[in-house]
Amino acid sequence: MAMQAEAKPLIERYGLQNIEGFFGEVPTELYRGIIAGKELCIVTLGRQHGVDLVGCEAATLATTLAINMLHPDMIINAGTCGAFKANGSEIGDVYLSEGPVMFHDRRIGDDPLGIQSLGNYPTYDAHQMAADLRLKLGKCTTGSSLDCLDEDLAIIKREGGMLKDMEAGAVAFVASVYKTPLICVKSVTDLIDGGEKTIDEFRRNLSMASNALRDACTKIIQYLFVDQPTLF
Amino acid sequence: MAMQAEAKPLIERYGLQNIEGFFGEVPTELYRGIIAGKELCIVTLGRQHGVDLVGCEAATLATTLAINMLHPDMIINAGTCGAFKANGSEIGDVYLSEGPVMFHDRRIGDDPLGIQSLGNYPTYDAHQMAADLRLKLGKCTTGSSLDCLDEDLAIIKREGGMLKDMEAGAVAFVASVYKTPLICVKSVTDLIDGGEKTIDEFRRNLSMASNALRDACTKIIQYLFVDQPTLF
Repeated sequence: MAMQAEAKPLIERYGLQNIEGFFGEVPTELYRGIIAGKELCIVTLGRQHGVDLVGCEAATLATTLAINMLHPDMIINAGTCGAFKANGSEIGDVYLSEGPVMFHDRRIGDDPLGIQSLGNYPTYDAHQMAADLRLKLGKCTTGSSLDCLDEDLAIIKREGGMLKDMEAGAVAFVASVYKTPLICVKSVTDLIDGGEKTIDEFRRNLSMASNALRDACTKIIQYLFVDQPTLF
Repeated sequence: MAMQAEAKPLIERYGLQNIEGFFGEVPTELYRGIIAGKELCIVTLGRQHGVDLVGCEAATLATTLAINMLHPDMIINAGTCGAFKANGSEIGDVYLSEGPVMFHDRRIGDDPLGIQSLGNYPTYDAHQMAADLRLKLGKCTTGSSLDCLDEDLAIIKREGGMLKDMEAGAVAFVASVYKTPLICVKSVTDLIDGGEKTIDEFRRNLSMASNALRDACTKIIQYLFVDQPTLF
């Protein structure tokens, strides 16, 4: 999870313990607990210069360290996102990632290098889980900015992106390299085609969306740890 | 270094050995040798799906692994870049990084989160080295695309960016977190304000710029390893 505000409701829900200094001098933070006999670790990007780290570089760093030091059976990239009214999305909706995770702001060209720059890293097939838990499904698309330029939008539309965030692509890149199964869980804070300024909408809805994210993650953890323990 | 084509002239210059599998299942590659009694490691981003990896996520992964597994005294991020005719830059010019390394495509806002998103991670003060080796100096600015949108250009101009690349910001983020001294060395493949399509100019000049990069890096290695061995 990226920001402290996104992770806090879930950390409190399970009473996870902050393992200070686990990642050494790196800002990345670890919260850990045992749930139904299994280890649950929440990794956040931590803070730098007094504010939360966000974005692809901090997410790549955290995911690389988490995989190398915690050896997870599965990664759940849980966070908030923007979505499209035109796709029927509403504020507070929670989605599981459907299909590969893409980038929408790495424009290199149309050759193999350009196709690689789109990412489209595989995710775990969450169709059954989404049906069982009554969660929506959508394709995650990642960029390094909170706004959405016309160039971003054109690529998102062309590739079928539905959930615009700032970390999933980076987490998916590292997870794919290490062949670690990944599910993205994204809670909608703002509607890209809703007409409001993203930063205002994001700030107003962050707390509500983070609570919705906690509730969905709680269901997912119950599903993976207790109801379907043989999945991993 | 990012691409094989950028690194090859320097690897051949020193006869460095490819240490296969050093980074395990990760595409990141290591080339190693002993120069004047000191270890020289070239780390490249490696290949995925048959093409070279480029960009900030692969650079973050490689830098994180390189620091944790090789414990370098100094990182030199050597590569190619775009530059501006208006600043007097010419194809094949080689620059050292001056001042902090920024990002030009992480737009979040004007608050502390937005300021953090610009990066501006510190680099080693290379003024003396640039004077001694007769290399130019310029501020590096990084983004995830080969093109340069008006939004990118506005941020580059406002922040004084001169050398536009696709990895330096990511390397500088990780280096700053681990407090590892960093110098960026950038060889100009294309002129952003030159009127030509970047991808064509980049392809045509990549080999020439990579040879110029090799010559500059050879001078820098001689300087750090032999002439000024007490600097690190």
